[in-house]
Amino acid sequence: MISKNQIKLLKSLEYKKYRKLHGLFVAEGPKLVNELLLEGWQPKHLFHLPEWQGSNGETGEEITDRELSQISQLSTPNEVLAVLQLPENEFNGFGHKLNLVIDGIKDPGNLGTMIRLADWYGLKEIFLTPDCTDAFSAKTVQASMGSIFRIKITQLAQQEIVLLPAQMAQVLGAFLDATPVKSIEPKWPLSLVIGSESHGISQEIENLVTHKISIERKGKAESLNAAMACGILLDNLL
Amino acid sequence: MISKNQIKLLKSLEYKKYRKLHGLFVAEGPKLVNELLLEGWQPKHLFHLPEWQGSNGETGEEITDRELSQISQLSTPNEVLAVLQLPENEFNGFGHKLNLVIDGIKDPGNLGTMIRLADWYGLKEIFLTPDCTDAFSAKTVQASMGSIFRIKITQLAQQEIVLLPAQMAQVLGAFLDATPVKSIEPKWPLSLVIGSESHGISQEIENLVTHKISIERKGKAESLNAAMACGILLDNLL
Repeated sequence: MISKNQIKLLKSLEYKKYRKLHGLFVAEGPKLVNELLLEGWQPKHLFHLPEWQGSNGETGEEITDRELSQISQLSTPNEVLAVLQLPENEFNGFGHKLNLVIDGIKDPGNLGTMIRLADWYGLKEIFLTPDCTDAFSAKTVQASMGSIFRIKITQLAQQEIVLLPAQMAQVLGAFLDATPVKSIEPKWPLSLVIGSESHGISQEIENLVTHKISIERKGKAESLNAAMACGILLDNLL
Repeated sequence: MISKNQIKLLKSLEYKKYRKLHGLFVAEGPKLVNELLLEGWQPKHLFHLPEWQGSNGETGEEITDRELSQISQLSTPNEVLAVLQLPENEFNGFGHKLNLVIDGIKDPGNLGTMIRLADWYGLKEIFLTPDCTDAFSAKTVQASMGSIFRIKITQLAQQEIVLLPAQMAQVLGAFLDATPVKSIEPKWPLSLVIGSESHGISQEIENLVTHKISIERKGKAESLNAAMACGILLDNLL
């Protein structure tokens, strides 16, 4: 049984403003919820239909179909909904061998795909410029296929961006028609910046880039989607 | 002015059955339509709002906003709609240096992305197994970002699939946890088979594969989306 006030609060988590205000976000469906439980996340609430239980027998608060559809952000609610504490956004510098910086990506699906790619290639953290879409929206969480529970997401403040070249051997930026990535000798540690397909890398960050790199085009397509470019560049560098 | 019968016919092109029956498909929006005109396609009809013209001054049949929204397959109709002749589906064998075979991909967006990738990497044709989603649906055409107007799409019949290994030095198939693609020495000509993320490559085609290859996973994500895998593998091989 969920109270009206609880329903109101849970529905409000659809919006970034209320996720920040309450320090909470939501993950839905058996696959994602099992993944977060396996990764040791402890949901503030775990609402589920009577028939659901976690892959290690976990249970939470039973609710009805009707209640689930009242609190779900999915068009087809899917058995279980976890309410989670929003991780602290804490910038500790660009301290990895490869620092992936995502610049101005507005599409939640694309951002989710990049979080999944970061996880596939073994990165521990990704950095987002202030104008990126929020990583903790339902769509991004969903598109990350659970990888968001393993990767630290760091939203950069404007004044932190200028620190990008400090201690880096290279700051690589993805551009159309620059040096092919296959002819670049990576020097570590490095940062890799990916901008959006339509706007590319912002002028401010472009000024910090030491090497402009491209995926060599052999045919005629005009461009590649930002997440695709991210995947192909990570594969070349790692 | 469009007749009621024309509207009915155009709306029916949303469905593969009617696209086949009439031998027609649809492309919408200024970007796609300019691309197809530049590539030399000759629309059977070119319906557009009074304000639209092609980048070389092309015009067609003027229609009203109301008429456009009656024939459009987009949720937000976008100025212009071209009606095009469905290309002949003609199988001339696997005659390329790299023959890309797409096996059982159901998602139109994924297929469109792969057509765009094929175009980026300079392929001239892609081959689809009989159970793939139709390449000429509005969603796939849209997701291909115009690349579908440059790439020959060949839907294979069941009995053509067995020809896959003939004259090939290698038939590479994408699998999870097989030989890393970076340690494969490509031998030409070759075929590259990509299956769906959830079902992989069908048993029938798996039997024809000479080398099972993978994108090496360095972290913990469970899998990569099929289009992403296709892009990364093409980038490694070409």
